[in-house]
Amino acid sequence: MTNAREVKVGVLGATGTVGQRFIALLAQHSFFVIHALGASARSAGKPYSKAVNWKQTQPIPSAVREMVVQECVPEHFKECAIVFSGLDADVAGDIEQAFRTAELAVFSNAKNFRRDPHVPLIVPLVNTSHFSMIPQQQRLHSPALKKGFIITNANCSTTAVVIPLAALERAFGPIESCIITTMQAISGAGYPGVSSMDIFDNIVPYISGEEEKIEWETLKILGGLTEGDDGLKAFDMHTKQPLRISASCNRVPVIEGHTECVSVRFARRPPPSPQQVREALQAYTSEAYAIGCPSAPRHTVFVHEEPDRPQPRLDRDYQAGAGVCVGRVRQCRVLDIKFVVLGNNVAIGAATSSIINAEYAVLKGLVGA
Amino acid sequence: MTNAREVKVGVLGATGTVGQRFIALLAQHSFFVIHALGASARSAGKPYSKAVNWKQTQPIPSAVREMVVQECVPEHFKECAIVFSGLDADVAGDIEQAFRTAELAVFSNAKNFRRDPHVPLIVPLVNTSHFSMIPQQQRLHSPALKKGFIITNANCSTTAVVIPLAALERAFGPIESCIITTMQAISGAGYPGVSSMDIFDNIVPYISGEEEKIEWETLKILGGLTEGDDGLKAFDMHTKQPLRISASCNRVPVIEGHTECVSVRFARRPPPSPQQVREALQAYTSEAYAIGCPSAPRHTVFVHEEPDRPQPRLDRDYQAGAGVCVGRVRQCRVLDIKFVVLGNNVAIGAATSSIINAEYAVLKGLVGA
Amino acid sequence: MTNAREVKVGVLGATGTVGQRFIALLAQHSFFVIHALGASARSAGKPYSKAVNWKQTQPIPSAVREMVVQECVPEHFKECAIVFSGLDADVAGDIEQAFRTAELAVFSNAKNFRRDPHVPLIVPLVNTSHFSMIPQQQRLHSPALKKGFIITNANCSTTAVVIPLAALERAFGPIESCIITTMQAISGAGYPGVSSMDIFDNIVPYISGEEEKIEWETLKILGGLTEGDDGLKAFDMHTKQPLRISASCNRVPVIEGHTECVSVRFARRPPPSPQQVREALQAYTSEAYAIGCPSAPRHTVFVHEEPDRPQPRLDRDYQAGAGVCVGRVRQCRVLDIKFVVLGNNVAIGAATSSIINAEYAVLKGLVGA
Amino acid sequence: MTNAREVKVGVLGATGTVGQRFIALLAQHSFFVIHALGASARSAGKPYSKAVNWKQTQPIPSAVREMVVQECVPEHFKECAIVFSGLDADVAGDIEQAFRTAELAVFSNAKNFRRDPHVPLIVPLVNTSHFSMIPQQQRLHSPALKKGFIITNANCSTTAVVIPLAALERAFGPIESCIITTMQAISGAGYPGVSSMDIFDNIVPYISGEEEKIEWETLKILGGLTEGDDGLKAFDMHTKQPLRISASCNRVPVIEGHTECVSVRFARRPPPSPQQVREALQAYTSEAYAIGCPSAPRHTVFVHEEPDRPQPRLDRDYQAGAGVCVGRVRQCRVLDIKFVVLGNNVAIGAATSSIINAEYAVLKGLVGA
Repeated sequence: MTNAREVKVGVLGATGTVGQRFIALLAQHSFFVIHALGASARSAGKPYSKAVNWKQTQPIPSAVREMVVQECVPEHFKECAIVFSGLDADVAGDIEQAFRTAELAVFSNAKNFRRDPHVPLIVPLVNTSHFSMIPQQQRLHSPALKKGFIITNANCSTTAVVIPLAALERAFGPIESCIITTMQAISGAGYPGVSSMDIFDNIVPYISGEEEKIEWETLKILGGLTEGDDGLKAFDMHTKQPLRISASCNRVPVIEGHTECVSVRFARRPPPSPQQVREALQAYTSEAYAIGCPSAPRHTVFVHEEPDRPQPRLDRDYQAGAGVCVGRVRQCRVLDIKFVVLGNNVAIGAATSSIINAEYAVLKGLVGA
Repeated sequence: MTNAREVKVGVLGATGTVGQRFIALLAQHSFFVIHALGASARSAGKPYSKAVNWKQTQPIPSAVREMVVQECVPEHFKECAIVFSGLDADVAGDIEQAFRTAELAVFSNAKNFRRDPHVPLIVPLVNTSHFSMIPQQQRLHSPALKKGFIITNANCSTTAVVIPLAALERAFGPIESCIITTMQAISGAGYPGVSSMDIFDNIVPYISGEEEKIEWETLKILGGLTEGDDGLKAFDMHTKQPLRISASCNRVPVIEGHTECVSVRFARRPPPSPQQVREALQAYTSEAYAIGCPSAPRHTVFVHEEPDRPQPRLDRDYQAGAGVCVGRVRQCRVLDIKFVVLGNNVAIGAATSSIINAEYAVLKGLVGA
Repeated sequence: MTNAREVKVGVLGATGTVGQRFIALLAQHSFFVIHALGASARSAGKPYSKAVNWKQTQPIPSAVREMVVQECVPEHFKECAIVFSGLDADVAGDIEQAFRTAELAVFSNAKNFRRDPHVPLIVPLVNTSHFSMIPQQQRLHSPALKKGFIITNANCSTTAVVIPLAALERAFGPIESCIITTMQAISGAGYPGVSSMDIFDNIVPYISGEEEKIEWETLKILGGLTEGDDGLKAFDMHTKQPLRISASCNRVPVIEGHTECVSVRFARRPPPSPQQVREALQAYTSEAYAIGCPSAPRHTVFVHEEPDRPQPRLDRDYQAGAGVCVGRVRQCRVLDIKFVVLGNNVAIGAATSSIINAEYAVLKGLVGA
Repeated sequence: MTNAREVKVGVLGATGTVGQRFIALLAQHSFFVIHALGASARSAGKPYSKAVNWKQTQPIPSAVREMVVQECVPEHFKECAIVFSGLDADVAGDIEQAFRTAELAVFSNAKNFRRDPHVPLIVPLVNTSHFSMIPQQQRLHSPALKKGFIITNANCSTTAVVIPLAALERAFGPIESCIITTMQAISGAGYPGVSSMDIFDNIVPYISGEEEKIEWETLKILGGLTEGDDGLKAFDMHTKQPLRISASCNRVPVIEGHTECVSVRFARRPPPSPQQVREALQAYTSEAYAIGCPSAPRHTVFVHEEPDRPQPRLDRDYQAGAGVCVGRVRQCRVLDIKFVVLGNNVAIGAATSSIINAEYAVLKGLVGA
């Protein structure tokens, strides 16, 4: 059934790092078909292969090599049902808004609307229930929209950790506090991104804005939706069961794959045992996979038994990087349980999340035919 | 005064990684003079330059190039007042014991005696007070010793974190709990140590036995000494004020310098502010420096104000790696305060600690003339 | 047709680095079916997943997870038509000989028989004509063999360079001299192989025996076969048109993919232009591909036009690493033409070559049904 | 004697990568005293510690921390006898010319004047004889100069190889041809320079303009001076004994230290043996060291006997990087002799060369008191 349909999509920021990943993934997608590519005025008018400084390990897909790049204005994307945005934050705000107003469904990897009270921040293996915010987003827009909306996905380092946290909350109830130390790959900073002089044989124990993103986005994603007396929905930010998160973010000399050391304390006493945690993580399934999103991974969380896994070089490509890998589940002497999670920052941490979100919207009939 | 004296020393395990560091440091020491080198039977009888696979960035010191390597038996070290042990754990136990019995002062970097109830585990910038255990160690030995004793220094990852923790306890009273995530350099594993295939473009989130060492050694170092009814001293393991420590250890692709993210909770309420913590760390001084140990650093803890420091490549050689660098002191949403500490694992984390311990013992008259 | 057939194969040295690659490739092969696994006595009797320290980026193929590892003796491989050998050189000689004597077709990646005057050294994209030596190898064996033989493939650094050299000789006649400087990946040294302490932030300008291999193997591969007065064939080692080769080999901090800078001088004057060289390389085709070997690449030599390619990280996986990539074809001020070639040392430089050789033998009917 | 004098110097481009190195070296110089710092208008007026993004492993020298940065105009440098230029090529031309016209002695690391027919290109361990071009440079300037002149040093990759080549020509007469393959460190590209995404786990077989620099600069440096009928001196570019050089340049994942594989053919037949070459390299001395330049190395060329040296990580800091290390001297099957040379690109390959050139000029009385 899904294969029968064909959905035309556009990619905004097509020449950038995230845009290239969108294209590499969409070029072999079972029902999305790349129909238009948008980039800056400097690239517009050129065939894609001339406009891009292609940095992927596979060649430029033949379907887009000669496709002429457009400026990022809605009229060039009229025939698309969906646009994926890999735009930089400094331009994403205005452009994505214009596309929404032009009744396009925008799936954005940019951070600009993540904190918008009407825009869902969706990690597709966690909180697809937040899609229910779309009608309100459309209704409150001026003018009201019929088809246009914006869905964002989370920051790469948030995505990796929020998936096992969601699995734990589903199984054992609210988490009360959580300390996270990340070791993040250089690809998370885009291109040219991190200077080799800054990261060779080195650790940079700081990534601007990153800790705040983890601490804030996690609350929005794991929190539910509340409905006020005025009938309006709002993101509850996990406030009913306050969740304190403390993140420390580090850049490490790894190309791809964010590794994060996590300690959690549960509200429930006594807390689950490491073995119960392992089983709950392994058993966790996503609605996105259940309804047939083709890019959703079968194993949302793969739990390693070996003492020294997950490792980014060996495990980041498991299931094409669409799930996360957890290992070293054990007791924490300060909080309750600690573990290591690995998430592929350029797959589930970026373009893959947007694509699964879009697949979900298509399969649920949320995107106009 | 110190320059006037000259103290003959031996190095056990002289051809190994730690032994090479001992030699590089001792060759330019102001009062220690390398007098004998010990290694395995395979190396014995050869000039040092033939026996060693020298891996340091400076050339082999000329003073030892032609020195003939001996087997590790006390009679070859009779003229030494001190021996430094860089032996591997599988042989260090018996050899160090034999040297102590032969009335030599042994300063060991090996782990074998760290948990011995009569052997001090001394990080020289923290707990030189534990030297007071030596008379009891000698008295209880059979036969009782006059000059022989064993002093160990801590594991490299313990050393880096215990220094700022000691500074914080001195200023603000007991720490109640502490979560530590380490990012440890490959040189910590010796040579050949970590296979390049395991660590290039990779993180290994596990180092065998390392988390236990941090969690246990820190208690012995930060705890005081108690005296029982029988008049015997014992290490109190911080039991009067229980300290819970949870460590997660990772191997990262960095050559030298262990970076550790630390969150602490103080017993005292309210806890100190980040600024108070910064000042306390910066103000912390060691007795070793105060009494004139030539290898003790002037700044025990250097506190960085820049948001992205310390970094191993830029900061590991500050003060020849004899102090530690701290940065990013800020509030922790779960515990009280969090920060990053960098310790040079091959300097203060290993040979430099042993040497300062020995300097201290000499200056305090604990080593026989 | 080929898919219809099914050929049972064994893997010797199955737990080693090369053996793991054989298994990863064979597990998804269109007509080879892994039937038996051989390793040392220490591994024998265990299921493969317990015996191996698996280091590949894909999981252990399910077909071999529970397969019980055998000792490397022919009786356990009786049902195999072919055995692939990823054995270490210290044991490969005796074991491969025993398997040949037991009438098995042995395709070996080990170096032991490469210099044997009756064993072809075949880079399958270059000199499949050397398969014609098999009947003589069998006839001269004592006792004479009906089905057993040994085929070796070349050293990884030889393989990368010999492919473009073969293309150039086919198009422009004999090469007279060739200077090669290699930059070889750490995976070429196996596991644990190169210590991280030796190669992080470093170059090692020496690989034991490697320069001699390039200089000697290239002559055997590019040379033809001569027939003596006694009717016996011999490898002519390029002696009719002497070819002088000078290689300098370096280990570099790259995980996979050998990059080699090559300068050549042709016998023919005037020599071809860079553009002619580019065209000849691009046009070069292998007989292995022509007859339908499924693992043979469509583009034997991919010629890059961009000035800064090939690069190992971006290009080593092109065509699953089965071809080579060439770039920077330009004039050399000392010899005639210079260029850069990249060969995937763990694919065409090792297991993939053995597998294509075996595919060729099967398709040509050289392996007993 | 030299210590008695004190020479005030300025640094142009003081906040850049090369400028930082000049400052780190000059801050501990025996007779140069940093008197003025020049940078762009953006930095001018700020104390140096605020203007610079300091990236060296030692702290900012206290002598310059508070020194106020000036714009790069001669009036701010009036009291300096010498200015060192670490300017970028896009501004170096005009500024250096202005400083020369203002009667300042300019020692430049920029490339702008390297090909000027009146400006010497001096590697101080090789061709200090080219200082004799200064009077003509001054005389032909309009207006004629009394004290101002420009001296450039060579590109980093040229410097490393030209030193052993000079040693060989001194001992064995002209070299006829030379093939060079470089493996160059990332620090050669400045800061931010090479993106980590481009060079992690990778080789880039191309550095823009680099091969041409090696091939051209080497001729200017190794060639002598000729005098025409008009009495004018000119650089002879090795034309009396034509020298053909072919360079292939690669960027490798190494922080510091360029490694180069070199093959040479001598004009003289028979050529020297490897042992003769080793002895000639080891015996080579520089006039700069002979006359007492404090930064000139005692061993111009250190010859390694071990088969696997020099290595950048272990050998780049030998003699503070002021000499070069050679190893693997052996026969080449195509040319005569091949070897590996390592030069520290940020020391002798850049600032150190400029400083030794200036020391030489001071000791020779070429710089006004």
